Amino acid sequence: MGKVLVFGHTSPDTDAIVSAIAFAELKNKLGETVEPVRLGALNGETEYVLKHFNTDAPRLVKTVSNEVPAVYLVDHNEPQQSADDIDKVDVLSVVDHHRISGFETKAPLYYRAEPVGCTATILNKLYKENGVVVPKTIAGLMLSAIISDTLLFKSPTCTDEDVKAAKELEEISGVDTQTYGLAMLKAGTNIGDKSAEE
Amino acid sequence: MGKVLVFGHTSPDTDAIVSAIAFAELKNKLGETVEPVRLGALNGETEYVLKHFNTDAPRLVKTVSNEVPAVYLVDHNEPQQSADDIDKVDVLSVVDHHRISGFETKAPLYYRAEPVGCTATILNKLYKENGVVVPKTIAGLMLSAIISDTLLFKSPTCTDEDVKAAKELEEISGVDTQTYGLAMLKAGTNIGDKSAEE
Ligand SMILES: [Mn+2]
Ligand SMILES: [Mn+2]
Ligand SMILES: [Mn+2]
Ligand SMILES: [Mn+2]
Repeated sequence: MGKVLVFGHTSPDTDAIVSAIAFAELKNKLGETVEPVRLGALNGETEYVLKHFNTDAPRLVKTVSNEVPAVYLVDHNEPQQSADDIDKVDVLSVVDHHRISGFETKAPLYYRAEPVGCTATILNKLYKENGVVVPKTIAGLMLSAIISDTLLFKSPTCTDEDVKAAKELEEISGVDTQTYGLAMLKAGTNIGDKSAEE
Repeated sequence: MGKVLVFGHTSPDTDAIVSAIAFAELKNKLGETVEPVRLGALNGETEYVLKHFNTDAPRLVKTVSNEVPAVYLVDHNEPQQSADDIDKVDVLSVVDHHRISGFETKAPLYYRAEPVGCTATILNKLYKENGVVVPKTIAGLMLSAIISDTLLFKSPTCTDEDVKAAKELEEISGVDTQTYGLAMLKAGTNIGDKSAEE
Protein backbone atom coordinates (compact mmCIF):
# COMPACT_ATOMS: atom_id res chain seq x y z
CA MET A 1 0.00 0.00 0.00
CA GLY A 2 1.32 3.46 -0.94
CA LYS A 3 1.13 6.59 1.15
CA VAL A 4 -2.22 7.37 2.77
CA LEU A 5 -3.31 10.82 3.99
CA VAL A 6 -5.22 11.32 7.24
CA PHE A 7 -7.12 14.46 8.19
CA GLY A 8 -9.82 15.94 10.38
CA HIS A 9 -12.66 18.25 9.36
CA THR A 10 -12.57 21.62 7.63
CA SER A 11 -12.23 24.66 9.94
CA PRO A 12 -10.07 22.37 12.07
CA ASP A 13 -10.12 22.51 15.86
CA THR A 14 -7.36 21.10 18.08
CA ASP A 15 -8.86 17.57 18.03
CA ALA A 16 -9.04 17.57 14.20
CA ILE A 17 -5.35 18.51 13.92
CA VAL A 18 -3.98 16.47 16.81
CA SER A 19 -5.96 13.31 16.01
CA ALA A 20 -4.57 13.36 12.46
CA ILE A 21 -1.02 13.63 13.87
CA ALA A 22 -1.63 10.92 16.50
CA PHE A 23 -3.34 8.55 14.04
CA ALA A 24 -0.52 8.94 11.49
CA GLU A 25 2.06 8.28 14.21
CA LEU A 26 0.28 5.07 15.26
CA LYS A 27 -0.05 3.80 11.67
CA ASN A 28 3.58 4.68 10.90
CA LYS A 29 4.69 2.79 14.02
CA LEU A 30 2.67 -0.17 12.68
CA GLY A 31 4.63 -0.05 9.42
CA GLU A 32 2.34 1.99 7.14
CA THR A 33 3.23 5.27 5.41
CA VAL A 34 0.70 7.85 6.56
CA GLU A 35 0.93 11.65 6.41
CA PRO A 36 -1.29 13.90 8.51
CA VAL A 37 -2.68 16.89 6.60
CA ARG A 38 -5.21 19.63 7.38
CA LEU A 39 -8.11 21.15 5.48
CA GLY A 40 -7.92 24.69 6.85
CA ALA A 41 -6.10 27.35 8.87
CA LEU A 42 -5.05 26.62 12.45
CA ASN A 43 -7.02 28.41 15.14
CA GLY A 44 -5.19 30.28 17.89
CA GLU A 45 -5.60 27.52 20.45
CA THR A 46 -4.14 24.89 18.13
CA GLU A 47 -1.22 27.19 17.26
CA TYR A 48 -0.51 27.49 21.00
CA VAL A 49 -0.69 23.70 21.40
CA LEU A 50 1.66 22.91 18.51
CA LYS A 51 4.14 25.56 19.64
CA HIS A 52 4.05 24.28 23.23
CA PHE A 53 4.91 20.76 22.11
CA ASN A 54 7.32 21.95 19.42
CA THR A 55 5.39 20.16 16.68
CA ASP A 56 5.03 21.18 13.03
CA ALA A 57 1.53 21.83 11.72
CA PRO A 58 0.29 19.23 9.24
CA ARG A 59 0.54 20.34 5.62
CA LEU A 60 -2.45 22.32 4.29
CA VAL A 61 -4.37 20.68 1.42
CA LYS A 62 -7.61 21.48 -0.38
CA THR A 63 -7.98 18.26 -2.35
CA VAL A 64 -6.57 14.77 -1.84
CA SER A 65 -7.40 12.70 -4.94
CA ASN A 66 -4.57 14.43 -6.82
CA GLU A 67 -2.16 12.85 -4.31
CA VAL A 68 -3.55 9.50 -3.12
CA PRO A 69 -6.26 6.96 -4.00
CA ALA A 70 -7.28 6.35 -0.38
CA VAL A 71 -7.51 8.25 2.91
CA TYR A 72 -8.18 7.90 6.62
CA LEU A 73 -10.59 10.25 8.37
CA VAL A 74 -10.48 11.39 11.98
CA ASP A 75 -12.88 13.58 13.99
CA HIS A 76 -15.52 13.71 11.23
CA ASN A 77 -17.38 11.58 8.74
CA GLU A 78 -19.81 13.90 6.94
CA PRO A 79 -18.70 14.59 3.35
CA GLN A 80 -19.55 18.29 3.60
CA GLN A 81 -17.04 18.62 6.46
CA SER A 82 -14.33 16.79 4.50
CA ALA A 83 -11.98 17.35 1.56
CA ASP A 84 -13.61 18.92 -1.50
CA ASP A 85 -12.99 15.75 -3.51
CA ILE A 86 -13.68 13.16 -0.79
CA ASP A 87 -16.05 11.38 -3.21
CA LYS A 88 -13.08 10.66 -5.50
CA VAL A 89 -11.06 8.60 -2.96
CA ASP A 90 -11.64 5.45 -0.92
CA VAL A 91 -12.09 5.99 2.82
CA LEU A 92 -10.15 3.13 4.44
CA SER A 93 -11.04 3.97 8.01
CA VAL A 94 -12.77 6.47 10.25
CA VAL A 95 -12.12 7.26 13.91
CA ASP A 96 -14.71 9.70 15.20
CA HIS A 97 -17.04 10.73 18.03
CA HIS A 98 -19.83 12.44 16.05
CA ARG A 99 -23.16 11.29 14.69
CA ILE A 100 -23.01 9.53 11.32
CA SER A 101 -24.58 11.41 8.44
CA GLY A 102 -24.25 11.23 4.67
CA PHE A 103 -21.33 8.82 4.98
CA GLU A 104 -21.20 6.06 2.34
CA THR A 105 -18.59 3.52 1.25
CA LYS A 106 -18.38 1.06 -1.58
CA ALA A 107 -16.41 -1.45 0.46
CA PRO A 108 -16.15 -2.67 4.07
CA LEU A 109 -13.88 -0.49 6.20
CA TYR A 110 -12.64 0.03 9.73
CA TYR A 111 -15.06 2.44 11.39
CA ARG A 112 -14.60 3.25 15.04
CA ALA A 113 -16.98 5.73 16.60
CA GLU A 114 -17.68 6.01 20.30
CA PRO A 115 -20.01 8.43 22.09
CA VAL A 116 -17.19 10.14 24.01
CA GLY A 117 -16.04 13.76 24.20
CA CYS A 118 -13.00 13.61 21.94
CA THR A 119 -11.46 11.57 19.11
CA ALA A 120 -8.13 11.51 20.97
CA THR A 121 -9.84 9.50 23.74
CA ILE A 122 -10.61 6.76 21.20
CA LEU A 123 -7.10 6.98 19.73
CA ASN A 124 -5.68 6.40 23.20
CA LYS A 125 -7.56 3.05 23.19
CA LEU A 126 -6.31 2.22 19.69
CA TYR A 127 -2.70 2.73 20.79
CA LYS A 128 -3.29 0.28 23.64
CA GLU A 129 -5.18 -2.24 21.49
CA ASN A 130 -2.26 -2.22 19.05
CA GLY A 131 0.33 -2.51 21.83
CA VAL A 132 1.97 0.81 20.95
CA VAL A 133 3.04 3.18 23.74
CA VAL A 134 1.95 6.78 23.06
CA PRO A 135 5.14 8.86 22.58
CA LYS A 136 5.59 11.68 25.13
CA THR A 137 4.98 14.56 22.69
CA ILE A 138 1.96 12.84 21.11
CA ALA A 139 0.56 12.29 24.62
CA GLY A 140 0.79 16.02 25.29
CA LEU A 141 -0.96 16.77 22.02
CA MET A 142 -3.73 14.21 22.66
CA LEU A 143 -4.24 15.57 26.18
CA SER A 144 -4.61 19.03 24.62
CA ALA A 145 -7.32 17.73 22.27
CA ILE A 146 -9.28 16.29 25.20
CA ILE A 147 -8.92 19.55 27.15
CA SER A 148 -10.11 21.44 24.07
CA ASP A 149 -13.12 19.28 23.18
CA THR A 150 -14.28 18.91 26.81
CA LEU A 151 -13.41 22.49 27.91
CA LEU A 152 -11.20 21.04 30.65
CA PHE A 153 -13.76 18.30 31.48
CA LYS A 154 -16.62 20.79 31.96
CA SER A 155 -18.62 20.26 28.74
CA PRO A 156 -21.73 18.05 28.87
CA THR A 157 -20.17 15.79 26.21
CA CYS A 158 -17.28 14.86 28.54
CA THR A 159 -17.43 11.22 29.68
CA ASP A 160 -15.60 9.13 32.29
CA GLU A 161 -13.59 7.68 29.42
CA ASP A 162 -12.28 11.14 28.48
CA VAL A 163 -11.24 11.80 32.08
CA LYS A 164 -9.53 8.40 32.27
CA ALA A 165 -7.68 8.91 28.98
CA ALA A 166 -6.58 12.40 30.06
CA LYS A 167 -5.15 10.98 33.31
CA GLU A 168 -3.13 8.39 31.37
CA LEU A 169 -1.88 11.00 28.89
CA GLU A 170 -1.03 13.40 31.70
CA GLU A 171 1.16 10.73 33.23
CA ILE A 172 2.99 9.98 29.98
CA SER A 173 3.42 13.64 28.98
CA GLY A 174 4.28 15.03 32.40
CA VAL A 175 1.93 17.95 31.74
CA ASP A 176 0.06 19.61 34.63
CA THR A 177 -3.41 19.37 33.10
CA GLN A 178 -5.13 22.12 35.10
CA THR A 179 -2.40 24.77 34.74
CA TYR A 180 -1.59 23.99 31.12
CA GLY A 181 -5.26 23.50 30.22
CA LEU A 182 -6.32 26.91 31.48
CA ALA A 183 -3.41 28.61 29.69
CA MET A 184 -4.24 26.75 26.50
CA LEU A 185 -7.95 27.59 26.55
CA LYS A 186 -7.06 31.20 27.40
CA ALA A 187 -4.60 31.36 24.48
CA GLY A 188 -7.40 30.35 22.14
CA THR A 189 -9.68 33.02 23.54
CA ASN A 190 -7.03 35.75 23.49
CA ILE A 191 -6.04 35.16 19.92
CA GLY A 192 -9.70 34.94 18.98
CA ASP A 193 -10.30 38.32 20.64
CA LYS A 194 -7.27 39.84 18.95
CA SER A 195 -8.42 38.73 15.52
CA ALA A 196 -11.85 40.16 16.20
CA GLU A 197 -10.28 43.51 17.13
CA GLU A 198 -7.97 43.65 14.16
CA MET B 1 -32.05 2.34 30.59
CA GLY B 2 -34.95 -0.02 29.81
CA LYS B 3 -34.82 -3.12 27.66
CA VAL B 4 -33.03 -2.81 24.33
CA LEU B 5 -33.50 -5.16 21.36
CA VAL B 6 -30.61 -6.33 19.19
CA PHE B 7 -30.96 -7.91 15.76
CA GLY B 8 -29.23 -8.71 12.49
CA HIS B 9 -30.52 -8.14 8.97
CA THR B 10 -33.70 -9.38 7.29
CA SER B 11 -33.44 -12.83 5.62
CA PRO B 12 -31.07 -13.66 8.47
CA ASP B 13 -28.06 -15.89 7.98
CA THR B 14 -26.21 -17.65 10.81
CA ASP B 15 -24.06 -14.58 11.60
CA ALA B 16 -27.14 -12.33 11.84
CA ILE B 17 -28.82 -14.68 14.35
CA VAL B 18 -25.75 -15.70 16.33
CA SER B 19 -24.27 -12.21 16.60
CA ALA B 20 -27.56 -10.95 18.05
CA ILE B 21 -27.47 -13.73 20.66
CA ALA B 22 -23.77 -13.17 21.45
CA PHE B 23 -24.10 -9.38 21.64
CA ALA B 24 -27.14 -9.64 23.97
CA GLU B 25 -25.24 -12.09 26.18
CA LEU B 26 -22.28 -9.70 26.45
CA LYS B 27 -24.47 -6.69 27.25
CA ASN B 28 -26.49 -8.68 29.80
CA LYS B 29 -23.25 -9.81 31.47
CA LEU B 30 -22.30 -6.11 31.63
CA GLY B 31 -25.55 -5.33 33.48
CA GLU B 32 -27.85 -4.18 30.68
CA THR B 33 -31.18 -5.76 29.72
CA VAL B 34 -30.92 -6.77 26.07
CA GLU B 35 -33.06 -9.24 24.12
CA PRO B 36 -31.91 -10.73 20.80
CA VAL B 37 -34.65 -10.86 18.17
CA ARG B 38 -34.77 -11.77 14.47
CA LEU B 39 -36.36 -10.16 11.43
CA GLY B 40 -37.13 -13.31 9.42
CA ALA B 41 -37.30 -17.10 9.20
CA LEU B 42 -34.25 -19.19 10.12
CA ASN B 43 -32.46 -20.87 7.23
CA GLY B 44 -31.65 -24.59 7.39
CA GLU B 45 -28.03 -24.03 8.38
CA THR B 46 -28.96 -21.79 11.28
CA GLU B 47 -31.60 -24.29 12.45
CA TYR B 48 -28.90 -26.94 12.48
CA VAL B 49 -26.56 -24.67 14.46
CA LEU B 50 -29.13 -23.71 17.11
CA LYS B 51 -30.21 -27.34 17.51
CA HIS B 52 -26.58 -28.52 17.81
CA PHE B 53 -25.92 -26.05 20.62
CA ASN B 54 -29.36 -26.55 22.19
CA THR B 55 -30.18 -22.84 21.91
CA ASP B 56 -33.61 -21.25 21.39
CA ALA B 57 -34.10 -19.12 18.29
CA PRO B 58 -34.47 -15.39 19.00
CA ARG B 59 -38.08 -14.20 18.93
CA LEU B 60 -39.39 -13.15 15.49
CA VAL B 61 -40.41 -9.49 15.13
CA LYS B 62 -41.46 -7.31 12.21
CA THR B 63 -41.31 -3.93 13.94
CA VAL B 64 -39.47 -2.70 17.01
CA SER B 65 -40.72 0.81 17.82
CA ASN B 66 -43.88 -0.69 19.35
CA GLU B 67 -41.63 -2.33 21.97
CA VAL B 68 -38.58 -0.15 22.59
CA PRO B 69 -37.29 3.39 21.92
CA ALA B 70 -33.76 2.24 21.08
CA VAL B 71 -32.00 -0.72 19.48
CA TYR B 72 -28.60 -2.25 18.78
CA LEU B 73 -27.76 -3.51 15.29
CA VAL B 74 -25.42 -6.35 14.38
CA ASP B 75 -24.26 -7.67 10.98
CA HIS B 76 -25.93 -4.82 9.03
CA ASN B 77 -26.38 -1.08 8.96
CA GLU B 78 -28.40 -0.29 5.83
CA PRO B 79 -31.99 0.72 6.70
CA GLN B 80 -33.47 -1.35 3.87
CA GLN B 81 -31.95 -4.49 5.45
CA SER B 82 -33.31 -3.60 8.90
CA ALA B 83 -36.60 -3.49 10.80
CA ASP B 84 -39.50 -1.93 8.87
CA ASP B 85 -39.67 0.93 11.39
CA ILE B 86 -35.94 1.40 12.03
CA ASP B 87 -36.40 5.15 11.33
CA LYS B 88 -38.66 5.36 14.40
CA VAL B 89 -36.06 4.21 16.97
CA ASP B 90 -32.61 5.37 18.07
CA VAL B 91 -29.71 3.15 17.04
CA LEU B 92 -27.42 3.06 20.09
CA SER B 93 -24.70 0.97 18.53
CA VAL B 94 -23.70 -1.03 15.47
CA VAL B 95 -21.28 -3.95 15.20
CA ASP B 96 -20.82 -4.91 11.56
CA HIS B 97 -18.44 -5.96 8.80
CA HIS B 98 -20.22 -4.53 5.75
CA ARG B 99 -19.86 -1.31 3.80
CA ILE B 100 -21.77 1.66 5.26
CA SER B 101 -24.69 2.90 3.20
CA GLY B 102 -27.75 4.99 3.95
CA PHE B 103 -27.02 4.87 7.67
CA GLU B 104 -27.78 8.07 9.59
CA THR B 105 -28.06 8.99 13.27
CA LYS B 106 -29.17 12.08 15.12
CA ALA B 107 -26.69 11.50 17.96
CA PRO B 108 -23.20 10.09 18.49
CA LEU B 109 -23.16 6.32 18.91
CA TYR B 110 -20.87 3.35 19.28
CA TYR B 111 -20.11 2.10 15.76
CA ARG B 112 -17.67 -0.74 15.33
CA ALA B 113 -17.05 -1.98 11.83
CA GLU B 114 -13.98 -3.90 10.73
CA PRO B 115 -13.17 -5.27 7.28
CA VAL B 116 -13.20 -8.91 8.44
CA GLY B 117 -15.20 -11.93 7.29
CA CYS B 118 -17.76 -12.11 10.09
CA THR B 119 -19.42 -9.99 12.78
CA ALA B 120 -18.72 -12.72 15.35
CA THR B 121 -14.99 -12.12 14.83
CA ILE B 122 -15.47 -8.53 16.00
CA LEU B 123 -17.69 -9.65 18.90
CA ASN B 124 -14.91 -11.97 20.03
CA LYS B 125 -12.73 -8.85 20.40
CA LEU B 126 -15.47 -6.98 22.24
CA TYR B 127 -15.77 -9.79 24.79
CA LYS B 128 -12.03 -9.53 25.43
CA GLU B 129 -12.00 -5.72 25.51
CA ASN B 130 -14.75 -5.85 28.14
CA GLY B 131 -13.00 -8.57 30.13
CA VAL B 132 -15.86 -11.06 29.68
CA VAL B 133 -15.08 -14.72 28.93
CA VAL B 134 -17.20 -16.08 26.06
CA PRO B 135 -19.48 -18.78 27.53
CA LYS B 136 -18.96 -22.27 26.06
CA THR B 137 -22.28 -22.43 24.16
CA ILE B 138 -21.90 -18.88 22.83
CA ALA B 139 -18.39 -19.77 21.65
CA GLY B 140 -19.82 -22.69 19.65
CA LEU B 141 -22.43 -20.41 18.12
CA MET B 142 -19.87 -17.71 17.24
CA LEU B 143 -17.55 -20.30 15.71
CA SER B 144 -20.53 -21.45 13.60
CA ALA B 145 -21.07 -17.89 12.35
CA ILE B 146 -17.42 -17.61 11.28
CA ILE B 147 -17.59 -21.00 9.53
CA SER B 148 -20.78 -19.86 7.78
CA ASP B 149 -19.62 -16.41 6.64
CA THR B 150 -16.17 -17.62 5.54
CA LEU B 151 -17.30 -20.99 4.13
CA LEU B 152 -14.89 -22.75 6.49
CA PHE B 153 -12.14 -20.14 5.87
CA LYS B 154 -12.29 -20.55 2.08
CA SER B 155 -14.13 -17.35 1.07
CA PRO B 156 -12.09 -14.40 -0.24
CA THR B 157 -13.52 -12.25 2.58
CA CYS B 158 -11.88 -14.46 5.23
CA THR B 159 -9.03 -12.69 7.06
CA ASP B 160 -6.31 -13.76 9.49
CA GLU B 161 -8.44 -12.24 12.23
CA ASP B 162 -11.32 -14.61 11.44
CA VAL B 163 -8.99 -17.61 11.55
CA LYS B 164 -7.52 -16.41 14.86
CA ALA B 165 -10.95 -15.82 16.41
CA ALA B 166 -12.15 -19.25 15.22
CA LYS B 167 -9.14 -20.93 16.88
CA GLU B 168 -9.92 -19.19 20.18
CA LEU B 169 -13.61 -20.10 19.97
CA GLU B 170 -12.76 -23.70 19.02
CA GLU B 171 -10.70 -23.98 22.17
CA ILE B 172 -13.46 -22.59 24.41
CA SER B 173 -16.26 -24.60 22.79
CA GLY B 174 -14.39 -27.87 22.37
CA VAL B 175 -15.83 -28.15 18.85
CA ASP B 176 -13.83 -29.90 16.09
CA THR B 177 -14.06 -27.09 13.55
CA GLN B 178 -13.40 -29.10 10.37
CA THR B 179 -15.76 -32.01 11.13
CA TYR B 180 -18.52 -29.88 12.59
CA GLY B 181 -18.06 -27.16 9.97
CA LEU B 182 -18.50 -29.52 7.03
CA ALA B 183 -21.60 -31.09 8.61
CA MET B 184 -23.04 -27.66 9.32
CA LEU B 185 -22.46 -26.31 5.80
CA LYS B 186 -23.87 -29.59 4.37
CA ALA B 187 -26.97 -29.29 6.58
CA GLY B 188 -27.63 -25.87 5.12
CA THR B 189 -27.24 -27.16 1.59
CA ASN B 190 -29.39 -30.28 2.15
CA ILE B 191 -32.27 -28.37 3.62
CA GLY B 192 -31.96 -25.80 0.87
CA ASP B 193 -32.17 -28.59 -1.73
CA LYS B 194 -35.11 -30.19 0.04
CA SER B 195 -37.07 -26.94 0.06
CA ALA B 196 -36.36 -26.47 -3.63
CA GLU B 197 -37.69 -29.97 -4.39
CA GLU B 198 -40.84 -29.58 -2.32
MN1 LIG C 1 -13.45 18.63 15.94
MN1 LIG D 1 -13.49 16.16 18.35
MN1 LIG E 1 -25.11 -11.71 7.47
MN1 LIG F 1 -21.88 -11.47 8.59
